[in-house]
Amino acid sequence: MLRTERDGPWWVLWLDAPASRNALTDAMVSGLQQALNDAAQDPSVRAVLLRGAGGTFCAGGDFSRFRTLMAEPAPAQGPDPIAVFNRAFGAMLDVLAGSPVLTMACIEGAAMGGGCGLAAACDVVLATDTAVLATPEVTLGLPPAQIAPFVAARLGERQALRLMASAQRVNATEAQRIGLVDEVVPQAELPQALAAWQERLRRAEPQALRATKAILSRRRVSSLGETLDFAAEAFARSLRSGTASEGLAALGAKRAPAWATPKGLP
Amino acid sequence: MLRTERDGPWWVLWLDAPASRNALTDAMVSGLQQALNDAAQDPSVRAVLLRGAGGTFCAGGDFSRFRTLMAEPAPAQGPDPIAVFNRAFGAMLDVLAGSPVLTMACIEGAAMGGGCGLAAACDVVLATDTAVLATPEVTLGLPPAQIAPFVAARLGERQALRLMASAQRVNATEAQRIGLVDEVVPQAELPQALAAWQERLRRAEPQALRATKAILSRRRVSSLGETLDFAAEAFARSLRSGTASEGLAALGAKRAPAWATPKGLP
Amino acid sequence: MLRTERDGPWWVLWLDAPASRNALTDAMVSGLQQALNDAAQDPSVRAVLLRGAGGTFCAGGDFSRFRTLMAEPAPAQGPDPIAVFNRAFGAMLDVLAGSPVLTMACIEGAAMGGGCGLAAACDVVLATDTAVLATPEVTLGLPPAQIAPFVAARLGERQALRLMASAQRVNATEAQRIGLVDEVVPQAELPQALAAWQERLRRAEPQALRATKAILSRRRVSSLGETLDFAAEAFARSLRSGTASEGLAALGAKRAPAWATPKGLP
Repeated sequence: MLRTERDGPWWVLWLDAPASRNALTDAMVSGLQQALNDAAQDPSVRAVLLRGAGGTFCAGGDFSRFRTLMAEPAPAQGPDPIAVFNRAFGAMLDVLAGSPVLTMACIEGAAMGGGCGLAAACDVVLATDTAVLATPEVTLGLPPAQIAPFVAARLGERQALRLMASAQRVNATEAQRIGLVDEVVPQAELPQALAAWQERLRRAEPQALRATKAILSRRRVSSLGETLDFAAEAFARSLRSGTASEGLAALGAKRAPAWATPKGLP
Repeated sequence: MLRTERDGPWWVLWLDAPASRNALTDAMVSGLQQALNDAAQDPSVRAVLLRGAGGTFCAGGDFSRFRTLMAEPAPAQGPDPIAVFNRAFGAMLDVLAGSPVLTMACIEGAAMGGGCGLAAACDVVLATDTAVLATPEVTLGLPPAQIAPFVAARLGERQALRLMASAQRVNATEAQRIGLVDEVVPQAELPQALAAWQERLRRAEPQALRATKAILSRRRVSSLGETLDFAAEAFARSLRSGTASEGLAALGAKRAPAWATPKGLP
Repeated sequence: MLRTERDGPWWVLWLDAPASRNALTDAMVSGLQQALNDAAQDPSVRAVLLRGAGGTFCAGGDFSRFRTLMAEPAPAQGPDPIAVFNRAFGAMLDVLAGSPVLTMACIEGAAMGGGCGLAAACDVVLATDTAVLATPEVTLGLPPAQIAPFVAARLGERQALRLMASAQRVNATEAQRIGLVDEVVPQAELPQALAAWQERLRRAEPQALRATKAILSRRRVSSLGETLDFAAEAFARSLRSGTASEGLAALGAKRAPAWATPKGLP
C-alpha cells in the first residue's frame, strides 16, 4: 500500500508493504499517481519525498502479477492487457518526472528494477550506505521497459545501457559516480540529511522554486530563445509579486524572509 | 587488416596492423562495417568487442592516405574525394553507434583521433592502465571531423570540445572521469574483466537485451509517450514469448535460466 | 565596467568593479556582448577568457538595479521593462554560448547567480581553490531565470535543478564533480594553468579549432547525417587549404607547425 504523510509543505509518500519488500502493486502505482497529482494542485506543497518502509526502498515489479498476466492468453483483438498494465507504470513515472513540485527519493536498502525507475524519475536522489541498486530485468528474460527512458534521461544513454545490460548491483557510492544517486549519507545520519533538505526548502520561496522547474521543463520542448522569453516573464512576475522585494529586504536586514519563518516548512 | 574472431555469441573484431599501430585503413573501415552488419543480422550474437592487436588500440587515421588524397587536385565538379573518404569513416561509426547488438571497446595503449571515435561510438568502453587517449587533430591543422559528433554524444559537448581543443593526452583514470571510458582495469587483470562481461552477457537473455537497446534508440527519435508505448509492446512480447516465464521459473528454483547454460556464451 | 585585454589571439575580458564584487551592470552585459562579437569577427582570435578583478569572479545581478525596476509600475501595455532587462542578459549569454571562438572562464572567489550563468555558458571553466559557487536566487524569491537553461546545458537538468533548488554553496572540487567546473588549480598555480592553456591553443591551428566548434554547434540543430556531411566538407577544406600538409610535415620533421611559432599566441 501507499501511505502519505503530510507534514505541512513536505509530503512523504511511503511504499509500505515490507512483507514483499515494497514490490510495486497496481494500487501503489495508482496511489503514487494520485498523490503526485494532489501535490501538483496544492500550491503550499514544496517537495514530495518517496521512501520505502522497513529499510528497503522497492524490490521492483510484482512477479506474482506478471505470472497471472502471462496465464491469460492474449486477446484476439484490441490491446494486450500485459502492455496496458506495463504502460500504466510508465504513465505514473511520466507524472513523477513532470511534477511541478520538487521530487526526491530516499533509498535505503534495495532499489531494484522499477525501484530504480522511481528514483531515476525524481529530481533529487539521496541514498544511505545500505543502498543496493540494480536493473536485473534482462536476466529474467525481460527488457527494463518503462524505466529505460527515465534511467537514460538521468544517467545518459550509455551509462543506462551498461547498467541495464550488465544487471550489475551497485552500491550508493558507485550509483553516485554514474549519476543515479546525488547524495550518499551514512544510515545513521539520514535524519539530519533529510532535515537539511527541509531547511533548504524552507528558505526557497515556493513560487520561485516552481518557476525554476517550469523553466527547465520548458527548455526540454522549446527553443533556447523561447525558453529565455518564458524565463524573463517569470522573473518579471517575481519582481512584481512582492516575493523578490521581501527577499531583498530580508537580505539587507539580515533576517529570514517571511516564507522561511516557522509558518513555513516544519 | 580486420580480423574477426567468432566465439559463439561473442565476436571480437581485431584491428590488426601492429606495424602501423592499427592506423585505420579503408579496408579496416569497410571490414568493420561489414562485420557489424553481419552481427546485426545474426540473432545469436550478443556482443561485439573491438580490440587492437599488439598492445595498441588504434593510432587513428592513416596519414599516408591523407597525403595521397592531398596530392590529387579537387575535381572541377562533383563531390571532393577527400570529403567522400572522410564521410565513409563516419558512415561506419554510425553503423557502430546504431548496432542492435551490445558493442564494447577494449583500449590497451594508444587510442588516438579516430581510435577515440571508435571507442566513443561503442556502448561500453573498457581500458587498461596502459591506455593513453587523445584527439590531437587540431594540432595537425585538421578538425576531428567525423568523430566529433560521437565523442560529444558520449562525453557531452563541453567535455568533448575541451578534449578536442586542448589535444591533451589523458590516461584511463582521467578518461573515466570525463566519460570516455567506463571501466579501468590493470593490464594483468584484463582477461578476468573480459570474462566477467562474458558471464554477465551469458545471463542476459538475448532478445531482452536487444529490446533494451531498441527502446533506448527509439527514445532518441520519438516522444516519451511513443517510447513508452513501444516499450510496453516489447514487455508484452517478452512475457508472451516464454523467456520471462523461464526467467521467473529459474529465479524461483534458484537455477540458471536456459539461455545462461553452457550452450550460451563460451 | 568591462575591461578588454588583447594579448594577440588571446583576449581577456575583465569584469572590473571590485567595489560591488563585479556585480553585473547593464554596461558590463552590453560590453561583454560587444567584445564577444568583435572576437567572433576577428579570425586571429583563438580564445576569449572571462575573469573578475579583485579576487572575485562575479557576485551576480545588480540588486540596486532590481530595486529601481520594481519601484516603477508595470506599463499598461507593451512589454514589461523588467522582462526586457532580464532577457538582455540571456541574449548576451546566448552570444557567449554560441561564440565561434573558444571561450573560457577563470573563477577566483565568488561566482554567484549570474556569475554561475557566465561560467556555465563558457566552453572551459577553470577554478582556483578559492572559488565558491552558488545560485541562491530562490532564497531571494526569484527564479534563476536567464541562467537556468545554460546551467542545465552544462550540468544536465537534474544537477542544475538540485543546485538551483538547494541554493547550496559549492567549492571548486564539488563544482568539478557536478560539471560546473572543468579544472581546479591552487590559487598560486593559476598563472601556470593559464599559460598551459595558452600553449595548448598556440599548437591548435585556428581554423581547425573554429571548425571543431562549428561541427559541434551544427550537431545541436541537425541530424547526425547532416552533421557528418558538414564535418566531411570541413575536413576536405583543411586538407585543401594547406594547414593539414603543414601539420603533417611538421609532425614528420618533429618541428613546430607555422601557426605555433612565436608569431602565434604570446
